[in-house]
Amino acid sequence: MQIKVVRDVLDANKAVAEAMRRDYAAAGLFVLNVMSSPGSGKTTLLQKTLAALAGRLRIAVIVGDICTTNDAERLSKSADVPVVQICTDAFGGDCHLAAHVVREAAAGLPLQDLDLLIVENVGNLVCPAEFDIGEDRRAVVLSVTEGEDKPLKYPLMFQVCDVALLSKVDLLPHLDFNMKLCRQAIQDVHPGMRVLEVSAKSGQGMDEWFGWILKQVAAKKQ
Amino acid sequence: MQIKVVRDVLDANKAVAEAMRRDYAAAGLFVLNVMSSPGSGKTTLLQKTLAALAGRLRIAVIVGDICTTNDAERLSKSADVPVVQICTDAFGGDCHLAAHVVREAAAGLPLQDLDLLIVENVGNLVCPAEFDIGEDRRAVVLSVTEGEDKPLKYPLMFQVCDVALLSKVDLLPHLDFNMKLCRQAIQDVHPGMRVLEVSAKSGQGMDEWFGWILKQVAAKKQ
Repeated sequence: MQIKVVRDVLDANKAVAEAMRRDYAAAGLFVLNVMSSPGSGKTTLLQKTLAALAGRLRIAVIVGDICTTNDAERLSKSADVPVVQICTDAFGGDCHLAAHVVREAAAGLPLQDLDLLIVENVGNLVCPAEFDIGEDRRAVVLSVTEGEDKPLKYPLMFQVCDVALLSKVDLLPHLDFNMKLCRQAIQDVHPGMRVLEVSAKSGQGMDEWFGWILKQVAAKKQ
Repeated sequence: MQIKVVRDVLDANKAVAEAMRRDYAAAGLFVLNVMSSPGSGKTTLLQKTLAALAGRLRIAVIVGDICTTNDAERLSKSADVPVVQICTDAFGGDCHLAAHVVREAAAGLPLQDLDLLIVENVGNLVCPAEFDIGEDRRAVVLSVTEGEDKPLKYPLMFQVCDVALLSKVDLLPHLDFNMKLCRQAIQDVHPGMRVLEVSAKSGQGMDEWFGWILKQVAAKKQ
């Protein structure tokens, strides 16, 4: 019974997401959905990303949280780009962003004048993976503080994403984290998945991440 | 519509959980629900907890994950206690443990001969907070690597829990983590909440955690 209900919700969500994808394609807009556990460093990563790319692309950000506007405030300070905060406590404290909620938030943005819309999803390694929000590509951020077995324990998130960012690698000297096992776990659940090792703090791997984004946006324009 | 459905599921769950609580009380069993984001260090914390307390209490553990039996294997090696792994991918990949699922897992345990049942929930700082699983007390583990603002962003989890463990404090010298702000954030969402700073790696604060558990179990027996 419960599973039946969830499927209905997901079907309805999918229909909205597909309409969004058509509209955004018509506007020449590339949409990137960034997902992770709470505290993986998504916002810091995106602050650096905005600072690096805002001069090259016309960007906007939609950020989802259950409560607070902390992340939108942090992102607004990083670059002169429009930022919209969604607080899902207005929607029953939802643990993910749903397509119609993102569409509503995006409606206030100048979509025709943008190249890239980044959606920072609610911090949750489970539920957001199930909800298409009309995006072109999906990125999962896994902090190396979380342990190398997480791709095996949360396989759907790694299966639905196009790229995995292993974040906070500046902390590796202080952790018992086996990078080889983590990379193997990712390949076990998503063979061929692109993996980037990054630190927003030290800058390691960040140019590769910026390059990945630029390439995706350029491919969409063609 | 969606919220209506969720409420029905939660009502049904609550009824099962209350029946479980009556049964476990009759058996003299104390049940502790441990929740957190993925990778906060729940399993390592519980490994040390079992090693420290298995000689003083009769303990069993139920551990929930979407996939893998990694955690049950790790816990089984820590002490000679019964460990049951729930893989929620058998229930549609649920992002939380529900009462009836825990009841089913507990049915195979010698409940009359136990003092303490620890339930390690699915790694998720959102959804498990909504599902009563018949427990007596709830603990939330927040790794200091996740950042000090998480209690404000995930308030329900901190509101429903009785104690907050700030874990991995051995990493504090390498992080930009403001302990004072984090403690304030916890008090903002749950005034008076008990907070313990712990490191399963260095042992810091662990005796205080063991003492908290022993006191709770003793109180239930009276």
